[in-house]
Amino acid sequence: MTTMGVAVIGAGYWGPNLIRNFLAGPDWDLRWVCDLDEDRARRALRHAGGVQVTTDLGQVLDDPDVVAVAVATPAATHTEVVLAALDAGKHVLVEKPLAPSLAEGQKLVAAADERGLVLMCDHTYCYTPAVLKIRELVMSGELGDVQYVDSVRVNLGLVQPDIDVLWDLGPHDLSILDFILPEEMRPSRVAAFGADPVGAGHTCVGYLTMPLAGNAVAHVHLNWLSPTKIRTTLIGGSKKMIVWDDLNPSQRISVYDRGVELQQPAEGEARQRAQVAYRLGDMVAPTLPEGEALQGVVAELAASIREGRAPLTDGRAGLRVLELLEAASRSLETGGGFIELEEVQ
Amino acid sequence: MTTMGVAVIGAGYWGPNLIRNFLAGPDWDLRWVCDLDEDRARRALRHAGGVQVTTDLGQVLDDPDVVAVAVATPAATHTEVVLAALDAGKHVLVEKPLAPSLAEGQKLVAAADERGLVLMCDHTYCYTPAVLKIRELVMSGELGDVQYVDSVRVNLGLVQPDIDVLWDLGPHDLSILDFILPEEMRPSRVAAFGADPVGAGHTCVGYLTMPLAGNAVAHVHLNWLSPTKIRTTLIGGSKKMIVWDDLNPSQRISVYDRGVELQQPAEGEARQRAQVAYRLGDMVAPTLPEGEALQGVVAELAASIREGRAPLTDGRAGLRVLELLEAASRSLETGGGFIELEEVQ
Amino acid sequence: MTTMGVAVIGAGYWGPNLIRNFLAGPDWDLRWVCDLDEDRARRALRHAGGVQVTTDLGQVLDDPDVVAVAVATPAATHTEVVLAALDAGKHVLVEKPLAPSLAEGQKLVAAADERGLVLMCDHTYCYTPAVLKIRELVMSGELGDVQYVDSVRVNLGLVQPDIDVLWDLGPHDLSILDFILPEEMRPSRVAAFGADPVGAGHTCVGYLTMPLAGNAVAHVHLNWLSPTKIRTTLIGGSKKMIVWDDLNPSQRISVYDRGVELQQPAEGEARQRAQVAYRLGDMVAPTLPEGEALQGVVAELAASIREGRAPLTDGRAGLRVLELLEAASRSLETGGGFIELEEVQ
Amino acid sequence: MTTMGVAVIGAGYWGPNLIRNFLAGPDWDLRWVCDLDEDRARRALRHAGGVQVTTDLGQVLDDPDVVAVAVATPAATHTEVVLAALDAGKHVLVEKPLAPSLAEGQKLVAAADERGLVLMCDHTYCYTPAVLKIRELVMSGELGDVQYVDSVRVNLGLVQPDIDVLWDLGPHDLSILDFILPEEMRPSRVAAFGADPVGAGHTCVGYLTMPLAGNAVAHVHLNWLSPTKIRTTLIGGSKKMIVWDDLNPSQRISVYDRGVELQQPAEGEARQRAQVAYRLGDMVAPTLPEGEALQGVVAELAASIREGRAPLTDGRAGLRVLELLEAASRSLETGGGFIELEEVQ
Repeated sequence: MTTMGVAVIGAGYWGPNLIRNFLAGPDWDLRWVCDLDEDRARRALRHAGGVQVTTDLGQVLDDPDVVAVAVATPAATHTEVVLAALDAGKHVLVEKPLAPSLAEGQKLVAAADERGLVLMCDHTYCYTPAVLKIRELVMSGELGDVQYVDSVRVNLGLVQPDIDVLWDLGPHDLSILDFILPEEMRPSRVAAFGADPVGAGHTCVGYLTMPLAGNAVAHVHLNWLSPTKIRTTLIGGSKKMIVWDDLNPSQRISVYDRGVELQQPAEGEARQRAQVAYRLGDMVAPTLPEGEALQGVVAELAASIREGRAPLTDGRAGLRVLELLEAASRSLETGGGFIELEEVQ
Repeated sequence: MTTMGVAVIGAGYWGPNLIRNFLAGPDWDLRWVCDLDEDRARRALRHAGGVQVTTDLGQVLDDPDVVAVAVATPAATHTEVVLAALDAGKHVLVEKPLAPSLAEGQKLVAAADERGLVLMCDHTYCYTPAVLKIRELVMSGELGDVQYVDSVRVNLGLVQPDIDVLWDLGPHDLSILDFILPEEMRPSRVAAFGADPVGAGHTCVGYLTMPLAGNAVAHVHLNWLSPTKIRTTLIGGSKKMIVWDDLNPSQRISVYDRGVELQQPAEGEARQRAQVAYRLGDMVAPTLPEGEALQGVVAELAASIREGRAPLTDGRAGLRVLELLEAASRSLETGGGFIELEEVQ
Repeated sequence: MTTMGVAVIGAGYWGPNLIRNFLAGPDWDLRWVCDLDEDRARRALRHAGGVQVTTDLGQVLDDPDVVAVAVATPAATHTEVVLAALDAGKHVLVEKPLAPSLAEGQKLVAAADERGLVLMCDHTYCYTPAVLKIRELVMSGELGDVQYVDSVRVNLGLVQPDIDVLWDLGPHDLSILDFILPEEMRPSRVAAFGADPVGAGHTCVGYLTMPLAGNAVAHVHLNWLSPTKIRTTLIGGSKKMIVWDDLNPSQRISVYDRGVELQQPAEGEARQRAQVAYRLGDMVAPTLPEGEALQGVVAELAASIREGRAPLTDGRAGLRVLELLEAASRSLETGGGFIELEEVQ
Repeated sequence: MTTMGVAVIGAGYWGPNLIRNFLAGPDWDLRWVCDLDEDRARRALRHAGGVQVTTDLGQVLDDPDVVAVAVATPAATHTEVVLAALDAGKHVLVEKPLAPSLAEGQKLVAAADERGLVLMCDHTYCYTPAVLKIRELVMSGELGDVQYVDSVRVNLGLVQPDIDVLWDLGPHDLSILDFILPEEMRPSRVAAFGADPVGAGHTCVGYLTMPLAGNAVAHVHLNWLSPTKIRTTLIGGSKKMIVWDDLNPSQRISVYDRGVELQQPAEGEARQRAQVAYRLGDMVAPTLPEGEALQGVVAELAASIREGRAPLTDGRAGLRVLELLEAASRSLETGGGFIELEEVQ
């Protein structure tokens, strides 16, 4: 298997991780790191040899050996950079969120479609062993019907100057939700509430509520002002229930054989407490393979290009995340009521 | 100090705890246990001697040595029982919720006021060392301005046939919130969302959102369908932040000297990330006294009667909880928008 | 099934628990509580009616309806009280340790044997769902060969005036060890080390090391001077491994499908790292039944009397614990070397 | 400040970490990576440019710009490699253990002394923020007199073919102990017990017991066969007590204001339980600086060379660890009794 040439655009916070993983995997030949700050690009390479550094995106896109580019620039610049890359015939991996707005995201997806190029979102969490395992439990039916997904992602976080906590942390939970839910259960509306008790000018403590089919619900708590880090997701199913504690490396996923079942009362009979049955079985913590999620990302990018297929987290998945974020923003502006995704599409 | 006669009405789930604590404390002489099921009343006494058992409430209320009654009957019966007790001139301790509806709760408070009798709500959690400590940290100003209160109370709970999870578990969190917040920060509106994925006929997974003064927020997650028990409350303040994990007996309260402060940019200057200052000081887990909260409840009941004052958790506190619950129910019925408490008062 | 009469002798620390459990279970009719301090006996009854209180052991033993007595007096008095009870033809349940010395313990076992009476040790931990599960995993072969048992029992404990930490806390771990190990693996020697950094006059921090058959080992860490409570036991087997964390009620027992297997090198071949195989399977936390262990104790006492058989934790089990404690004390006195149990028997 | 040239010898398990840290810090210019396997050396560099690779140690030692070498070869080769480096006038950082035997370690220390060169042991843990904090608490007197140090380091570890678990994991705990204890409390004797239930040919589950001055004790539990990783150290002092849980990144160090104090009974008075006083104050979890310990190691190497002083973890600290290990091995061979360090020196 020959390697493919790749370039990383943007050497700030996330770029170095992409660089490291493109260097480490078997699929890729990292040819360029491009950043407006040449020194930063050089530092991001951490002495790695054989990789060219440039401040000129055009130079990268002119290189015929570059098959794909990974865009890790600020969200505000995604549209321009990704469109240029697609125009140059490059496949594109783009940092979350796909674009700074849904409309621009739609433009990117359309452009990739027209040109038959892969547009992949770097929804890194989806490639962790924990999330892959959860998806498997849901998709295989082992979990039963999804009853609720409750996600908490809080820490003493970097209060961003330009985006609120929903747009900063939300893409993680929303992309995971998109990844693990069956298509027919994907949320179609969202209500958001945000508090800004420190006067940052936008939401620092936020909640998203998304009704799901079957009278189920997904809920996300995002908070930059928590004294400790919590990253816990509960996923209730009619057959099994999952606790995913991402901060417990020795037991990230606990799968409980527990649940509540209602026995329907006979005709004319009043419902009684006794007609609820509780299942209280064992808990299993499956062993998860080790491994960095970004290795899965760069491998999936390569595989989708080679096989001419959409990647697991394609541009459309990125669009669905943007739809939820835009609807959430509109909900915030209009007092917290539910916004149908159709209203923003 | 002479003891006062007391009777416990209702010997079901909570009654035995009241019985045990009235027997154990120095203030009270338990004279009667009254239940429609005389055997249950007897069993609840667990061989305790010298206490009379009856199925006749009238007999209890006719006893001139009974100074106070504790009402632990189903919520639907509170109004009738409490009014009868007040009419008989007895002080009353009543199980949460105060009454099955706000209107009936208001009747009870009015009746107690007219007669100059103590009407106390058994908001047990408020008398735990942990909640008393949190209240002290807030009221003394040590926490600074409250920025958010986020409470999670989930477990594989008893799905109640007649009330939803908001009315079943919510009174705990709402009474705590009422207890720890300064008066001027008490919530004035609430939005609720509920899911019923098992078909119980009412909300089994619920969320309450309550904006607070100062762009702060209180949020409660209540869930009967969680595989594990979680009882964690985060309380963010401008000076300190608290994590209260009620399931960690060796470290229930952790007080972090952490926070985020915004430095206001100079006139005309754009806000930059550098203008946020993070405080990352030590954490202190204060030693909490041991002791059962219900001892504090029965002691406060005695003290408020003796001193002729309102108890810490008086009927009005119970009303405020009912207001929030009624508004939450109305929010559920009307699609999840915010309901002003004024609308239900 | 008719109930049997029982008396509790000693109403100090443990007596009230026995009283409560004899009152609660279906097998027993609690007839007497006997204590030198009549008030204490009365208080221990907590208002339970129908039970006689006395300071006179003779009165209890003269009662022909008393079938069994439970002895919860200080260890120093066990010999006298238990012998008197056996002489009066009563079956006996005795608090740990069986007797203050091995010689006296032997006397008690001999006396019970002669009279054909049940002598049972209240090794309460052995009747917890956790320990019963561990025993089942070991005895059924599911764990494979026991490789090690490592037990930590530390807290800021009551520094006893008359006995050291080995005799105070050690009986718990040694009785559990005796209960869960197959007979052929029971330890035959022990080495002890003790530190007394606070000048209590005896060991406050102690370690017991007991080699087991098959080059395995049991080790116990006992400590009165630890700032936090830890009660964790690791049990390694050739097929499964157990972590028992008694302070984690939602996951007391974790059973790991993990292990190390050596592949024997071929003749003449040097051992290489590659010849060790690691098994890294899932973890299962079995659901354990709820329930107080002492209910199991009083039920086993009744069953063994009714069925005319030795109880699960009989006098001989108590003797084996005493042998280990005496050998440990001798090890302490003689500088920490191993003492064969034969030397003290 | 000009950088100093450095070479890393050995590119196996630990070498890449040294390489990364020499590259990252401000003090060093990494000039060579030397390994018998040139490919491995190259891979260890992970594309870092400007560093020469060789299989010839002589070439490295001939380079006059190499001021120091870091030796990360197998322990068996330390003596030869370190002596060659010292002979060539290079300062030396050497992986733990300093040497495969005490006698050889003594040779290395003597050689460095003669030549006035720095010989530093890479006792990495001593440079973690947690251990530095513990040392500060002990050395400043805040902890009071050390009463016990109890260390548990267990996991499902690599069963080494050539050394037992005491020599594999023990240097971590013994070097930490050496680092945090005042000189006058350093252990002077050790007893060891080892079990080999898997037939590895040497100890896989080991315990070390080291009496300390003042009737205190240090104890270490090392285990390659544990299903989960535990790295917890309890350090009791007469004024404060520490729990160090190295696997809890959000609360590694907990400092308890707790303890037990004996009030001496008056002349002729028997000791009573009441004469023990318990202090049950708050717990403080100090905020620890972030940062990789190896950065501290390479910085201390540079500082000690520049300042012509012994490093914090000098060759003598390495010798003390070797003394304990040799005495432990002798204890294992002779049946587990205490071995004075004087016997092995």
